[in-house]
Amino acid sequence: MTVSPGATLRELRERKPLIHQITNYVVMNETANATLALGALPVMAHAPEEVEEMVGLASALVLNIGTLSEHWIEAMLLAGRAASARGIPVVLDPVGAGATRYRTDTARRILDEVGVTDLRGNQGEIATLAGTEAEVRGVESMTTGLEPAALALGAARQLGLVASVTGPIDHVSDGERVLDVANGHPLLAAVTGTGCISSALTGCFLAVKPEEPLEAAAEALAALGVAAEDAAAGAGGPGTFHARLYDALAALDPDTLDGRARFSET
Amino acid sequence: MTVSPGATLRELRERKPLIHQITNYVVMNETANATLALGALPVMAHAPEEVEEMVGLASALVLNIGTLSEHWIEAMLLAGRAASARGIPVVLDPVGAGATRYRTDTARRILDEVGVTDLRGNQGEIATLAGTEAEVRGVESMTTGLEPAALALGAARQLGLVASVTGPIDHVSDGERVLDVANGHPLLAAVTGTGCISSALTGCFLAVKPEEPLEAAAEALAALGVAAEDAAAGAGGPGTFHARLYDALAALDPDTLDGRARFSET
Amino acid sequence: MTVSPGATLRELRERKPLIHQITNYVVMNETANATLALGALPVMAHAPEEVEEMVGLASALVLNIGTLSEHWIEAMLLAGRAASARGIPVVLDPVGAGATRYRTDTARRILDEVGVTDLRGNQGEIATLAGTEAEVRGVESMTTGLEPAALALGAARQLGLVASVTGPIDHVSDGERVLDVANGHPLLAAVTGTGCISSALTGCFLAVKPEEPLEAAAEALAALGVAAEDAAAGAGGPGTFHARLYDALAALDPDTLDGRARFSET
Repeated sequence: MTVSPGATLRELRERKPLIHQITNYVVMNETANATLALGALPVMAHAPEEVEEMVGLASALVLNIGTLSEHWIEAMLLAGRAASARGIPVVLDPVGAGATRYRTDTARRILDEVGVTDLRGNQGEIATLAGTEAEVRGVESMTTGLEPAALALGAARQLGLVASVTGPIDHVSDGERVLDVANGHPLLAAVTGTGCISSALTGCFLAVKPEEPLEAAAEALAALGVAAEDAAAGAGGPGTFHARLYDALAALDPDTLDGRARFSET
Repeated sequence: MTVSPGATLRELRERKPLIHQITNYVVMNETANATLALGALPVMAHAPEEVEEMVGLASALVLNIGTLSEHWIEAMLLAGRAASARGIPVVLDPVGAGATRYRTDTARRILDEVGVTDLRGNQGEIATLAGTEAEVRGVESMTTGLEPAALALGAARQLGLVASVTGPIDHVSDGERVLDVANGHPLLAAVTGTGCISSALTGCFLAVKPEEPLEAAAEALAALGVAAEDAAAGAGGPGTFHARLYDALAALDPDTLDGRARFSET
Repeated sequence: MTVSPGATLRELRERKPLIHQITNYVVMNETANATLALGALPVMAHAPEEVEEMVGLASALVLNIGTLSEHWIEAMLLAGRAASARGIPVVLDPVGAGATRYRTDTARRILDEVGVTDLRGNQGEIATLAGTEAEVRGVESMTTGLEPAALALGAARQLGLVASVTGPIDHVSDGERVLDVANGHPLLAAVTGTGCISSALTGCFLAVKPEEPLEAAAEALAALGVAAEDAAAGAGGPGTFHARLYDALAALDPDTLDGRARFSET
């Protein structure tokens, strides 16, 4: 196990990889700022006319279905196929899969037509896509029939990718191993888009360490979790926590990050 | 008069109603975060393919015409009719009605085709839709020919809904009574989207208390006003006020809220 | 040289000009809030059905191509032509020109079909549009073949407009003179959309002083730079800096602004 969020973060800040994000209207500013605060460069582009060219400049692609419509799906598929062809990592955030058929079908279609490297979602979303029973209300996960670690393992195995099931404890699996990440803070759940931020940061870490996607995905969640712990200290609630989260991402110290990350293997 | 924002807020935090919002690009993050900070669950979805299904999961629908285009109007009408059919409350925020014909016509069309429960706007917007003389510049209300309390009463009566005319003092009417809400802070006018936030929170309160829409609408405005008072204390200007507003919404105390709300009946 | 950001700001706060912005999804909230904090009124509208009417109410138009698609280009051209016909200033922010052909071509098309008053971009974007060699990655400028002051001068001359090349030092030229603005703070580069904010504020200043576009454009950048200096003092990183930037814009003092602005002429 070569998990070292500090080493990956150090390399990320040197390389400043470009992360192409086709994401939802609600969180675009937030995922761009988180990407920038971490030390990578975000770019948002969704026109079918340009997504393939933009993917050609990027080191990772993040697809997020939070506010879908037909043109955006077309762009995600074009960009995703171009990313697969170039061999750069693709993260899929299936926001609200399980809540409506449109979202479930779109997420499945992307999984079918694009070589997704990492699927990052809550329990309900991942369970829906793995064919497990789940209840999703809007974009919130309610209940699932499985323990999240088993869910991550099963989804990774069945879908042939790395599955990142986030929650109070995150579980990341490549279908063989499951890494647990116990960093974070309850205020993350009080701000919209922190799940989407975790997907964007997963893209950042994968861009630097594409050959070890399991480790990179777990490292990204640890980095966000540690930043959230720092941001929560002194925050007066979700609004100031949100502003401080970018401060904390920018202030993440590669030298102490490994020691603060709380990884375990199930 | 059974106005008790504290009791409604307590119930909202227990039930966590899902509030479906089809709103403008400028404020999506803001209204989602305000909904979440208050204690409800936001979901944004605007594709014609899914809005009816999403409405089926929601306890209230909020329509906001701040950045219109054709596909979005179609989605608002589909979602609005589905909400009316299900009998859940619908809030309409007619951003910029009176500024362009497109906005005025769209707001009127929604009022015609959807059973709108509450119309929340500034004086110029409400006056435009009630057929009263008004001057609107962009999305700002300039002047209207009527006192706002009389405007709320007349609009409610004419349109057959609850009218919430917000400003330094808010006036909410069901066409028979007018409740005034004297909470709030001038900094609310220095941040874009606080009007849209008041519409989203109106949807939250209506979701919990749909049978008393006049009271629920006034309670929502009192809750936002009290939170704004708290957020302003210690804020250095509109930016830190904005961040602190979510802190204050999350910290609203149901036990003291009724005592702090400044209601009166005209 | 009648450069006085303080005098222009004072007049702006009295007139409260309406600034119509057709901008990208990532920064809409940010540019609206910056416009409002400065003291002007923002309005976002992009439907072809209403942009000409909205332009008719506005004192300046800001076009930003950060998240393009076909309908938006159509709207920008309609709005831009209407603004030219009315004789109000138009600012173009060519986000990502040079990164993809679609962006470069769209920026060129707007320059061809609209009477652009001020072109505000980073070195790579302006160099691309001026026909100079440049490397742009995503929306970031990497390298250009020219010194930025010479670039501003050449672009202004060639394109027949005011060119604002922003960076650690900003260079603004009308093709005859070059004004340098040495205000600002490195944290501006750590927050997405601060370039877009500088374009929006350029629109605000041009609205008040349309007959002196070179001076107005330089004044806008000085105002933002001074606000950034204030916001950075006491900020804990990019997130709190971002919130404090709106505080600082709202707190800008017309009486001291001229003394704090660091202008020079190349």
